[in-house]
Formats: sequence, C-alpha cells, structure tokens
Amino acid sequence: MDINKLSINTATFKHLNLKEVADLCSKNNITAIGPWRDKVEEIGLKEAVKIIKDAGLKVSGLCRGGFFSADSHHNMDDNQRAIEQAAELGADCLVIVSGGMLPNNKRLSDSHQYIQEGLALMVEYAKSLQVPIALEPLHPMYAADRCAVNSLEQALQICNEIGEGIGLAIDSYHVWWDPQLFKLIKKAGEDDKILAYHVCDWLTPTSDMLLDRGLMGEGVIDLEAISNEISNAGYNKYVEVEIFSNRLWQLPPQLLMQKVIDAFEKEV
Amino acid sequence: MDINKLSINTATFKHLNLKEVADLCSKNNITAIGPWRDKVEEIGLKEAVKIIKDAGLKVSGLCRGGFFSADSHHNMDDNQRAIEQAAELGADCLVIVSGGMLPNNKRLSDSHQYIQEGLALMVEYAKSLQVPIALEPLHPMYAADRCAVNSLEQALQICNEIGEGIGLAIDSYHVWWDPQLFKLIKKAGEDDKILAYHVCDWLTPTSDMLLDRGLMGEGVIDLEAISNEISNAGYNKYVEVEIFSNRLWQLPPQLLMQKVIDAFEKEV
Repeated sequence: MDINKLSINTATFKHLNLKEVADLCSKNNITAIGPWRDKVEEIGLKEAVKIIKDAGLKVSGLCRGGFFSADSHHNMDDNQRAIEQAAELGADCLVIVSGGMLPNNKRLSDSHQYIQEGLALMVEYAKSLQVPIALEPLHPMYAADRCAVNSLEQALQICNEIGEGIGLAIDSYHVWWDPQLFKLIKKAGEDDKILAYHVCDWLTPTSDMLLDRGLMGEGVIDLEAISNEISNAGYNKYVEVEIFSNRLWQLPPQLLMQKVIDAFEKEV
Repeated sequence: MDINKLSINTATFKHLNLKEVADLCSKNNITAIGPWRDKVEEIGLKEAVKIIKDAGLKVSGLCRGGFFSADSHHNMDDNQRAIEQAAELGADCLVIVSGGMLPNNKRLSDSHQYIQEGLALMVEYAKSLQVPIALEPLHPMYAADRCAVNSLEQALQICNEIGEGIGLAIDSYHVWWDPQLFKLIKKAGEDDKILAYHVCDWLTPTSDMLLDRGLMGEGVIDLEAISNEISNAGYNKYVEVEIFSNRLWQLPPQLLMQKVIDAFEKEV
C-alpha cells in the first residue's frame, strides 16, 4: 500500500492525547488519523476538530459506536452522539463494534437480531448526517463479551440486508484466520461494502487476549496478500494502523512511529 | 443427553493418572473414558488397556494425533503410533488436532493443503486398523500455533473430500460462536460425519487462552441447543466432558466428578 494511505489510529499511541498524536502525525508527514472517542471527548469535540484541522489531517474513521446490548434501547443515546461526532469530525466512517451477547440469553441468534435492529436504527440517523456506518466483525474470541458478530460472512450479510449507508471495517487481526477470507473480501468489494481497512499482526504466542497485538511483520498474518485482495476489491481509502500492545506502548512515541512507518512500507 | 452417554476425558482430571481416572469413573457408574495419549504412554499401552477393561469402560476416543506441521513428514511416525494405540484401546475414534501453520510460511492455504495430505495418509493407515479418524476444528484463536483448521465448515469440507474413514469431533468450546453452527451440524449429520461430541463452557471473561474453560453451565454456551442439534443430526454415541481448567483442577477429584455429573444432567 502507498505510504500516503497510512492513517494512525490513536489506540496505537494509547498514552498520548489527541493533540500529541496529531502533532506526531504531522511531524512524520502522515495525512490521516483514526481517533477513538475517549480521546475526542477528553479534550472536547470542538477542540478535537480544530486540532485535527490544524495538523492537516483527514479522519479515516471514528472508533467507535455500537455495543447494542449495553442497555435496552440499543445504546442509542450514545450511538447518536457517536454519529454526530463523526459528522463534526468529517470522518470517512463511524466504526461499529456490535457488543457481546444479550444478558441472560444464550441464544446467539437473538443477539444477532438485536444487533441488526440497532444497526438499522443507527444507519437511518447516520444517513441524515452523511456518516457511513462501518461494521467491524471481531475475532471469535470476543464473541461473548465484545462482539457477537464474528465472521466477515455474517457481517457482510447484515450489511447487505440493511442496504445503503452501511459497510464493513475489515481488521486483519480479526479475520486473518478465516479460510474464506479472500473469497469474502472479493465479494465485499463486488457489493461495494468495504469502508475501512485496519492492520496489525497476530503474535505467536499471544500473551493477552486484548493487549498483545503485533506490529505488522512481527506475527503470522499474510498482510501483503490481504492488502492485495483489498486493493483488488476496489478499496482505495486509508489503511489504519491500530495496535493494542502493552509492549509497544512502552516505546518512545517517535521510535514507535518510525517502526510503524517502516513496517507499513515493508509489510502492508 | 442421557447420563449413560457421559464419557470422561482424562484432561478434566489432569492431576490423576489413568488408573485413578478409571477408578473414579467406575466408582461413579460412568461407562466411558476419553484418554489422552500421555496418560496412556505414562503407564504403557498394555497396562492402559487392562486398566480400562478392568474398570468396565468403553473408550469414546483417544486424544490425539495430528500436528502435521511438526516435522516434514506429516508427523507420520507419531501419527501411526497414535492409530495403533487407538486400535489397541478399542477407541471409537482417534481425535486429530491439525497443528498450526507451516514454519516460515504465511499462506494459510498452504498449511491447509499440507494438513489435508497428512489426514489422507492417516486415514489410509487407520482404515486398515478400523480406527475412525475424527478431525476436530479448534477455536480460531489457536489458528497459528495449534490448529489451522478453525471452522466446522472447513473441517466438514476436508472430511467430505477425503471420504470414508474420517469425520468430525465437535467440541462446544471451539465452535459455539459460529453463526452457521446449527446449519453445519445438520449438514454434518446428513453427511454422516459426526464421530465425537465434546462439551465444556466458555467463560466471560476468559483469563487464559488454554486453561480457563468452564464447567457446563458456568459460561455462555447454549449447550442444550447444541446437544439437541447434535442428537437431531443422528449422533447417538458418547459425549465427552473435556475441561482444561487451572481452577477446577484444584478441586478434590470426587467433588469435581460430582459437579461434572450434575452439570451434565442439567445442561447437556
């Protein structure tokens, strides 16, 4: 992927605030950022918009809305706020993590239905603000508590059933293991449903289910092949580097940024 | 499931040797056991056969062969030994975990092909000794280092391509998250490919990717629905309880056994 496609997700620099990440991007000639909402809310939406604009950055996506099972109203108050924030920030999309299973209900299909209802409600509002909704299937190890939508096939089916205004955020970490991956990326491209592409690597062994992701090239994921497939499927927007890593977060930010840039050029 | 279908996988009582597990089964009127090979080899095959016979137990399956990527010959020496052990023990099947990705090769499809070749070789030899080979897809979180076969759909496809002599070991822990699960169990039944059914539960949160499985009912898996689907698919053999749990292994064996029996009757 062209280095000009590189976008930095703020999770990669967890200990920095939004201004510090934006400045670091500027300094390294990076043109896009993918902020998490806590970093935006910490400083206030208006100020966040200004910081990002002043740093000359595009917003490749806002992380994140969803978590429909968090309350009995599809978490809609918070989700409307997320859509409004994404609109103000001019984000290419609002990334959605569906949330886990409904409480006291072991029927996964009930959770899937509830999630799809929530997504449809969100899309309706998001369309009025021109914010594309990007549904991100997470790795099956998060099925119970974070994201009951765990396969690209299922996520694509949901997007197609809802129709306009919703597509996929494809993160290499969550989908790399899928034997149908390349076929599904191709199909998602044909359906015009790829809205975002996130990269990092899967380490062997993985010491922590949340915070032990790898820099691209450190692990087992065939990022070159996946990136090619994503490009061939017609996706030509930003590629976000989003790495949750207790280990990498210990590095000085500029050193980590240089590693990210080098790894992006070599591996993605 | 009828309590007479309960089989105890020796991993559930990791700190006991084969004779101790067999005696515990006897004492609790359990009629089948699923031994791991290390427990068999620790005491010797001949003695293991005698212990199991003396305790009046059937062998619902032997764990395990596979790990094809462990060497350059599909790990075939060890796999032949596993087949011979399964034959001597009169096991209903030999459970196979495929092993992870080939070294220095990020193309998952290459690993899949290598695994399928290894399985075909095993099946040829296993048929001569009348040992059914039971391919167990593991959870995608083990894709890199333990089992590159991670979906029931893919495992079933491999079984159908190889044909006679191979079927599936379906473990609730590894497949519960799959949105296609019920459809695939039905299809596996129609294809006459279900050879084993293992149960335990998925805990939320999961503190360890290997050794934090739950007793049936402690977690989120809809075991009743899965068991129904397995029964409806025509499976009527033993149901193995296989729980890797640092927590449960601390319990006195008879107490754990009683919990297993109670949970089996209530949840499976």
